Amino acid sequence: MAVCHFSAPKPITIPPSTHPVSTPKPLFRCNLSLPSKTLLINADPEPICSSVKAFAPATVANLGPGFDFLGCAVDGLGDFVSISVEPGVRPGEVSISDISGDNEKKLSKNPLSNCAGIAAIEVMKMLGVRSVGLSLSLEKGLPLGSGLGSSAASAAAAAVAVNGIFGNKLSVDELVLAGLKSEEKVSGYHADNVAPSIMGGFVLIRNYKPLDLIQLKFPSENNLFFVLVTPDFEAPTKKMRAALPAEIGMPHHVWNCSQAGALVAAVLQGDLVGLGKALSSDKIVEPRRAPLIPGMEAVKRAAIEAGAFGCTISGAGPTAVAVTDSEQRGKEIGKQMVEAFLKEGNLKACANVKQLDRVGARLIKTIQH
Amino acid sequence: MAVCHFSAPKPITIPPSTHPVSTPKPLFRCNLSLPSKTLLINADPEPICSSVKAFAPATVANLGPGFDFLGCAVDGLGDFVSISVEPGVRPGEVSISDISGDNEKKLSKNPLSNCAGIAAIEVMKMLGVRSVGLSLSLEKGLPLGSGLGSSAASAAAAAVAVNGIFGNKLSVDELVLAGLKSEEKVSGYHADNVAPSIMGGFVLIRNYKPLDLIQLKFPSENNLFFVLVTPDFEAPTKKMRAALPAEIGMPHHVWNCSQAGALVAAVLQGDLVGLGKALSSDKIVEPRRAPLIPGMEAVKRAAIEAGAFGCTISGAGPTAVAVTDSEQRGKEIGKQMVEAFLKEGNLKACANVKQLDRVGARLIKTIQH
Repeated sequence: MAVCHFSAPKPITIPPSTHPVSTPKPLFRCNLSLPSKTLLINADPEPICSSVKAFAPATVANLGPGFDFLGCAVDGLGDFVSISVEPGVRPGEVSISDISGDNEKKLSKNPLSNCAGIAAIEVMKMLGVRSVGLSLSLEKGLPLGSGLGSSAASAAAAAVAVNGIFGNKLSVDELVLAGLKSEEKVSGYHADNVAPSIMGGFVLIRNYKPLDLIQLKFPSENNLFFVLVTPDFEAPTKKMRAALPAEIGMPHHVWNCSQAGALVAAVLQGDLVGLGKALSSDKIVEPRRAPLIPGMEAVKRAAIEAGAFGCTISGAGPTAVAVTDSEQRGKEIGKQMVEAFLKEGNLKACANVKQLDRVGARLIKTIQH
Repeated sequence: MAVCHFSAPKPITIPPSTHPVSTPKPLFRCNLSLPSKTLLINADPEPICSSVKAFAPATVANLGPGFDFLGCAVDGLGDFVSISVEPGVRPGEVSISDISGDNEKKLSKNPLSNCAGIAAIEVMKMLGVRSVGLSLSLEKGLPLGSGLGSSAASAAAAAVAVNGIFGNKLSVDELVLAGLKSEEKVSGYHADNVAPSIMGGFVLIRNYKPLDLIQLKFPSENNLFFVLVTPDFEAPTKKMRAALPAEIGMPHHVWNCSQAGALVAAVLQGDLVGLGKALSSDKIVEPRRAPLIPGMEAVKRAAIEAGAFGCTISGAGPTAVAVTDSEQRGKEIGKQMVEAFLKEGNLKACANVKQLDRVGARLIKTIQH
């Protein structure tokens, strides 16, 4: 479903991963039990195929009180990265051959300045690739600066693609670390987009040193729909971060902590009402950021009035995210949210109703030698 | 198991509730679906028996990053309250006939100034009791000001006893609200002791207005042992609360929030290693309070070195709580913690190794008319 009052940035959609018939099937999955980086160093692995294509999903970070440590992957929206062995590229290096999608002109083809390029190089370093050069093609399905983890999806797709072409030797944690190198240069050292984009589902980032990720399994028998409404408005991450308070009073700290706990409980228990309540409950970040996105407060009210269990800002915005339990209700909620952005914020907006992506970044095509 | 280097405050122990043969069997359980307070008002119910005795377990509140919103009940330590219909007591009122236990002299027999009395009166009000007067006898099994929810256990036992003598008409939430009235007068409007003491298991307090409690089920197939080491030291709640920072920097806020989320995940997933890590991770409250309890930092180190998964201050202290997966290891850990209190804090201490109480406050005896 897409209700759009403007042409860009309309996300490219792919069929949802829960529909096996129409889904690009993951051909390889990251293997947690594979040898660690220390064993791989100096390995200079051979590519197992001549080219691969990977998809990585959009992500909703923060989720209200999960600010800076919680995120989840969203099915059917994301970025694609194709990687080929390229004799014309210097061994151990990556060349970006093509960037397509709505925002291609804003993105650098210098691999050292491009999210996908940085992650690809990092994975090559981790694998110890020295004899082969790679060509990278990026297909942007996500609008930039929308709060849907656009840079993380590019990094995740690139990391999984490069890992795939060399036989999936890196662990999930190593892929997340490679993605983090990219995120660090682009939007800050935060894994709450790149970890769920790589791993799928809900991911809690418990620690960075050492990296400690907790996958939170939302019960498969429960329906969970995200209503993602992206207005035609730029909310730069830096500006949204500058809006945050440096210090937090104890009562608000305790409140947000308890809501973070309730959010985790709701995810694990498959409690949609509880999830919605937690999503709407942030007293620290959302109150500072919402006023910077025209109409956001009205959009949240409209979502709740239309029956959403909860609503907040996705990532650093400007996308608003609401949760519900049916696609049909999600469409109605999205319509009301789009109208509220137009009426109260004077912003055109685009709505998508999507399910949780439980798979994460995956190879969708391989071409053998 | 009890390693004691001093006589008081040695907690009275009762057999654990997970051993059906030796356990005081709950005769009544609070019924969540029973009529609400509004329906009961003006009901003036008849007592269904002439006397009852209730037990309510000790509790560990805070659990590190769960400060002020999370607590759990501990099996085999707690307070007892007996309630009898007493024609000599003015109808609608409560008289405290007896207080026994190590601390009886410190506690008031004025029901308006006694935790058990306040909760008993509140439950009578909620039930609309006007024709019957009650006599209350309190048997303290818990030391005062130890960080084991002593006041909450008295209130919980009294609330459940009075509710029981009139046929268990109140819901769990109503009993917690009655207990909160008591806690408010004694140690502050916090439900993180009284809610788990009434409900058993782990309880997250999501909201007070309206009261919103989330029971977090720790998987029954997993062993969880608490090592509770109480030194001979007074840590008044007021002083421990005054030690807290008024404002918290954003990085520490995000850290503790993420650990709170990890703590909830560990409980629901039965992940003892994760639970221990979360317990040990608090960067806000424990660093301010631990230095006020002589030897506490060394005790924590000793617990971890002896194999505990994690350790922190129980409630506002001075009890230290560590977690482990076997009673035998718990005893060894307790021994090391007691020694550390003596060596580094010059304090005698008493260790108890106890399991999670999954039942909560319960009637253990009724005498019919």
